Amino acid sequence: MTTALQSPPRRTTSRLQDASLLNGPMLLLRSIKGFRRSQSWAWLASIPLALLGLGVFTFSARAEVALSDLTGPQAASFLADNLWLFIATILVIFMNAGFAMVEAGMCRQKNAVNILAKNLFVFALAVTAYWVIGYSLMYGGSVIDGWLYFQGLFVDPDPSGALECAAAGDTGCLVPAVDFLFQSAFAGTAATIVSGLVAERVKFGEFVVFSIVLTAFIYPIAGSWQWNGGWLAELGFIDFAGSSIVHSVGGWAGLVGAMLLGPRIGKFVDGKAQAMPGHNMAIATLGALILWIGWYGFNPGSELAMDQYVAYVAVTTTLAAAGGAIAATVLSTITSGKPDLTMIINGILAGLVSITAGCGNMTFAGSWLAGAVGGLIVVVAVAALDSAGIDDPVGAFSVHGVCGVWGTVVIGLWGVDGMDPGAAGIGLLNGGGINQFFIQALGAAAYGIWTVVTCWIAWQIIGGFFGGIRVSEAEETQGLDIGEHGMEAYPDFASS
Amino acid sequence: MTTALQSPPRRTTSRLQDASLLNGPMLLLRSIKGFRRSQSWAWLASIPLALLGLGVFTFSARAEVALSDLTGPQAASFLADNLWLFIATILVIFMNAGFAMVEAGMCRQKNAVNILAKNLFVFALAVTAYWVIGYSLMYGGSVIDGWLYFQGLFVDPDPSGALECAAAGDTGCLVPAVDFLFQSAFAGTAATIVSGLVAERVKFGEFVVFSIVLTAFIYPIAGSWQWNGGWLAELGFIDFAGSSIVHSVGGWAGLVGAMLLGPRIGKFVDGKAQAMPGHNMAIATLGALILWIGWYGFNPGSELAMDQYVAYVAVTTTLAAAGGAIAATVLSTITSGKPDLTMIINGILAGLVSITAGCGNMTFAGSWLAGAVGGLIVVVAVAALDSAGIDDPVGAFSVHGVCGVWGTVVIGLWGVDGMDPGAAGIGLLNGGGINQFFIQALGAAAYGIWTVVTCWIAWQIIGGFFGGIRVSEAEETQGLDIGEHGMEAYPDFASS
Amino acid sequence: MTTALQSPPRRTTSRLQDASLLNGPMLLLRSIKGFRRSQSWAWLASIPLALLGLGVFTFSARAEVALSDLTGPQAASFLADNLWLFIATILVIFMNAGFAMVEAGMCRQKNAVNILAKNLFVFALAVTAYWVIGYSLMYGGSVIDGWLYFQGLFVDPDPSGALECAAAGDTGCLVPAVDFLFQSAFAGTAATIVSGLVAERVKFGEFVVFSIVLTAFIYPIAGSWQWNGGWLAELGFIDFAGSSIVHSVGGWAGLVGAMLLGPRIGKFVDGKAQAMPGHNMAIATLGALILWIGWYGFNPGSELAMDQYVAYVAVTTTLAAAGGAIAATVLSTITSGKPDLTMIINGILAGLVSITAGCGNMTFAGSWLAGAVGGLIVVVAVAALDSAGIDDPVGAFSVHGVCGVWGTVVIGLWGVDGMDPGAAGIGLLNGGGINQFFIQALGAAAYGIWTVVTCWIAWQIIGGFFGGIRVSEAEETQGLDIGEHGMEAYPDFASS
Repeated sequence: MTTALQSPPRRTTSRLQDASLLNGPMLLLRSIKGFRRSQSWAWLASIPLALLGLGVFTFSARAEVALSDLTGPQAASFLADNLWLFIATILVIFMNAGFAMVEAGMCRQKNAVNILAKNLFVFALAVTAYWVIGYSLMYGGSVIDGWLYFQGLFVDPDPSGALECAAAGDTGCLVPAVDFLFQSAFAGTAATIVSGLVAERVKFGEFVVFSIVLTAFIYPIAGSWQWNGGWLAELGFIDFAGSSIVHSVGGWAGLVGAMLLGPRIGKFVDGKAQAMPGHNMAIATLGALILWIGWYGFNPGSELAMDQYVAYVAVTTTLAAAGGAIAATVLSTITSGKPDLTMIINGILAGLVSITAGCGNMTFAGSWLAGAVGGLIVVVAVAALDSAGIDDPVGAFSVHGVCGVWGTVVIGLWGVDGMDPGAAGIGLLNGGGINQFFIQALGAAAYGIWTVVTCWIAWQIIGGFFGGIRVSEAEETQGLDIGEHGMEAYPDFASS
Repeated sequence: MTTALQSPPRRTTSRLQDASLLNGPMLLLRSIKGFRRSQSWAWLASIPLALLGLGVFTFSARAEVALSDLTGPQAASFLADNLWLFIATILVIFMNAGFAMVEAGMCRQKNAVNILAKNLFVFALAVTAYWVIGYSLMYGGSVIDGWLYFQGLFVDPDPSGALECAAAGDTGCLVPAVDFLFQSAFAGTAATIVSGLVAERVKFGEFVVFSIVLTAFIYPIAGSWQWNGGWLAELGFIDFAGSSIVHSVGGWAGLVGAMLLGPRIGKFVDGKAQAMPGHNMAIATLGALILWIGWYGFNPGSELAMDQYVAYVAVTTTLAAAGGAIAATVLSTITSGKPDLTMIINGILAGLVSITAGCGNMTFAGSWLAGAVGGLIVVVAVAALDSAGIDDPVGAFSVHGVCGVWGTVVIGLWGVDGMDPGAAGIGLLNGGGINQFFIQALGAAAYGIWTVVTCWIAWQIIGGFFGGIRVSEAEETQGLDIGEHGMEAYPDFASS
Repeated sequence: MTTALQSPPRRTTSRLQDASLLNGPMLLLRSIKGFRRSQSWAWLASIPLALLGLGVFTFSARAEVALSDLTGPQAASFLADNLWLFIATILVIFMNAGFAMVEAGMCRQKNAVNILAKNLFVFALAVTAYWVIGYSLMYGGSVIDGWLYFQGLFVDPDPSGALECAAAGDTGCLVPAVDFLFQSAFAGTAATIVSGLVAERVKFGEFVVFSIVLTAFIYPIAGSWQWNGGWLAELGFIDFAGSSIVHSVGGWAGLVGAMLLGPRIGKFVDGKAQAMPGHNMAIATLGALILWIGWYGFNPGSELAMDQYVAYVAVTTTLAAAGGAIAATVLSTITSGKPDLTMIINGILAGLVSITAGCGNMTFAGSWLAGAVGGLIVVVAVAALDSAGIDDPVGAFSVHGVCGVWGTVVIGLWGVDGMDPGAAGIGLLNGGGINQFFIQALGAAAYGIWTVVTCWIAWQIIGGFFGGIRVSEAEETQGLDIGEHGMEAYPDFASS
């Protein structure tokens, strides 16, 4: 890491390098000491009947390095790195509010409570599932080299390894608590994207079970291929903050659900898609702005350290959002005559997703353009899904799925090799040849295939076990708020 | 503080140690130099008729230590500590938006303006009252040893003491401005909790006056017992971030108000509680997520320094919220048949309150469980208050009062002695004996008794002076928005 | 900068000093190396027909100083400065959500989509325009000494200069990416203020074009006079965070638009102003609290470094907001009988604007009072504009224009010379003489004259070119949401 910072011309910004270098010593220490075993035993003992066991950790204390032992530069980096990652984590968690407002605002009033409840509850489940096993599957030690990882259950909170890492002169030495929390927020994001695709017709309980499967198993295993130094990382795949790993996985998972569910009642009449306008544009707009803010944790936070590049990533992220907004607005104004607010919102989100993989491998101009093309894509994709008879109520697949793939492959078109001025082009169109493009396409395809297959199986099993995943026709017509939750979102207001 | 960080096995995480160690030198300096006297004189001179006096500080400048005099580790800690506390402060202040949205969303449309106005205005009052006298009563020099503190009026902004503290090699050296602002946000939180309990029937002006009394006197005096090293701190009471000190004080203060006010018209028919659903679940959900985010300032910020433990506190906070959400949702689904969104919201908040005292004294598993039990408690408590004929419109006493007490005593059940792997159990169920449990129960009781007695007096005096604290029956039926504010929250929408 | 921090008695807090000291070396380096020329060439090549050119930067890499070369204090300041400025930037960008919610909430339902779309889209445009040319005009090299600056098109992202600055022992060495993003958020704020003044009757496309002109040319040129060390800075004008430069410029620009547009249909009947209440007080209140939070980036961020003064600025900001809320509430209760929520909101915003220029040149008491007077002013100003027949739908000119001027001149009344205890008075009422007052008044007038003249021309040209800037009478009556966007904000709700 330190050497990487010293020699900018060849700074690999794919997160894997960071992950392997940073987490390596800590993971090693954990496996040697066998912490997790004892901790998982403690957990079993913690069920209400055996409260006595709670918190009994049998490992002995170790803290050879104290914060006050660090030299000035070491302390500066250790504190700034961990502070920045924690703040980035908070911003990513705040994205839950953004997703909840965008998805609820873009759905109909009669399903608002359902969408809100799903978004709120799923984060609680995601963080629990990721704590119990997901983090271990994603960042644990190798089980099947490059493909499967595991390190026992539950997250080990010992900060000693991070302090030792800092004392050894490394930067980006994150305590396990902040790394876990940052990663768990990413897992929650993937689940939240699904919520939008299956909105207004999926059963609450069945969705909840699927979310657990996704965040505990499907997402972490896929994520490890790249961010834990797996086979995609070894190929040289670049996905800095998760266009493929987070957004396309969420998009594919939801697409399978949406296709299995079928369209909402009344969405297609004689094969033609009908407009089903969202019920609250104020909260949808608020949600878009919260997501924009949250992305400053998502993308710059994926630098996994505080350094001179964090703000660079923030600028590429911002310019892509701006480009997406402008392009989507212009195109939708041309095609439909007037600037549609939902298209401004989706254009912004499309721009953000389009830069998420390449936010550390793109010039400023390249970022704006990647976002702008994403903005065009989202307008076309929404229409294309309608034509294909697939009902994506809030445009989540167009935004996260299609632009997730686009954001991954655009690195192979005009990406650059890092964030320093002398960074060489690695794309087909800026002199880098076609190699990176193929790798990017392969990675994007791998995430699509894995997610579609596993999620299809998961949705089928859940549906078979619980008697279908879709609410009854009567309940759908009346609204899921009454049917699933027995309440209304706005009981004091008259409906039109 | 430094030594504490160096020897983790016995790290006392109760905030008092920090407070006394950190603020000690600065408080001493202030009293020696008599800064506050001269400053309070300056204030008197600042009334409009004597503007000339404004800003005339008669003390001479002192700044023996400059930022550039600090060594590397000193500068790293000084900057990170003050930056982190400032960010934590912003997050806690943001909780005002969370409370406003949760409380307004869970009340009826006709009282929305009133709730919003209360929440907005009370923070302005709280910060003013806390600046004038509250901070001095809470963190000033000893007047009655362990029980009462005072240091003149107005906050002294001189950062010299913090720089000297850093130059002496200490960590957690906060400038007075950031410490004051962080603490004033806590004071505002206590007042905001009251707002929910007395909602939909209290007079605006009378509530405002009560808020001033609470934030200027009742809360700061109670807080000093623990966080200024008072008698509870000396007993070994643990309340890291304020389950008792902030949340239960707010809860008890509001409960007294709610009982003196009596229930809303129509709440109880033939002794049975009637549902009065909130008017806007979208903003209530948003508020819950804002509060969740804000809690990352509230709890981890209470470490009062940036170090390797901040993120640990964030994880315990997160897992408790998740546990609370899951337990409350499961229980309310069992009891009422369907997952109620308001119970998911209250479950999250219950989990958060339940870990606020013990967020630095709990294993990860213990935190999840503390939150989950909190989630169960809140469902039961809401029903119990209904049975008892007490009308708590948004469930604020169940969340902040009952779970505030629970969060305090759970440390005595399965708390541990710090955040390092070797931390010993200090609870009844994990080998720590019953001592800590009794201390926790005593502290929780002390805050309940103090608050109930003083607030009962305060509400009575205010009611006597202004002719009652409850609006007229006609006004309540019509809604407080028209009666108290002469306006509607949503004038363009038809009511159902 | 370093010396300034070492000798607090004469610490000039006007931002110019910072800007010239900090950006000087970097700007110099840029102009020597001619980076921008080659980059603007790269941009021209990046149009879709010539994608090949994207990312081709012809300058050679330079990175003589690496992060790991910095000493402890240097690394501590470099990391803290850049981290803090990035966080401040995020907070300021979040203000877009605040403005969107306040403005939309205070307008009528039938125009909500329009306001939301404007606020969302304009930030995308502002950041693009500021990236292309605005930043260069505001912080580039001198073209006409003290009056006009320019440095080619597009922002140069090279962080080398900042690292060299840090290695030379300076503090506040910001990488260009974070400085650009922080400044672009300010530019967006100015445009957003205009949106409120022209609400409910301006054409969407014409407003969009005006916003580009404002953020690309009018605002940056005016800003350079002070923050790039121009003629106002040389006179000793103080505007720490932009009461004049950002808020009054936005206010004046919007006022010209509002006067050219004329009042909304039905606003004045027989010369008397009619109430047109906002449609959603919940989101308006949320917006006010988001703006309050965002101001902690706006004002303390304008310190442009992390040091012992950042929190001081946060406290002056907070107390002014509190003073503004209290004074506006008291006065509006006296004049209208009941506390009006919109006046609490505008009182808070007025207090915040009133301290924006002087947040680093005011005692705590002076800040509270400056805000309180601002709160009184806003109540009077709203009534005065009504009397004058000017229709300002959300009170934006009263808040940002009038209080922007007030916040600028109050420094000449009771400002002090910095943030240290010994800071001398520089105002008319605290022994500083009348000199500073005249300079402040001159600066405020300069911003007013420049903005009114240039914006009058801009609005006229845009109106002439596109056939007027106001929607048709029929469209205005029906609402701009249908007319401009073909959609409704709340289609499922019945209107009253």
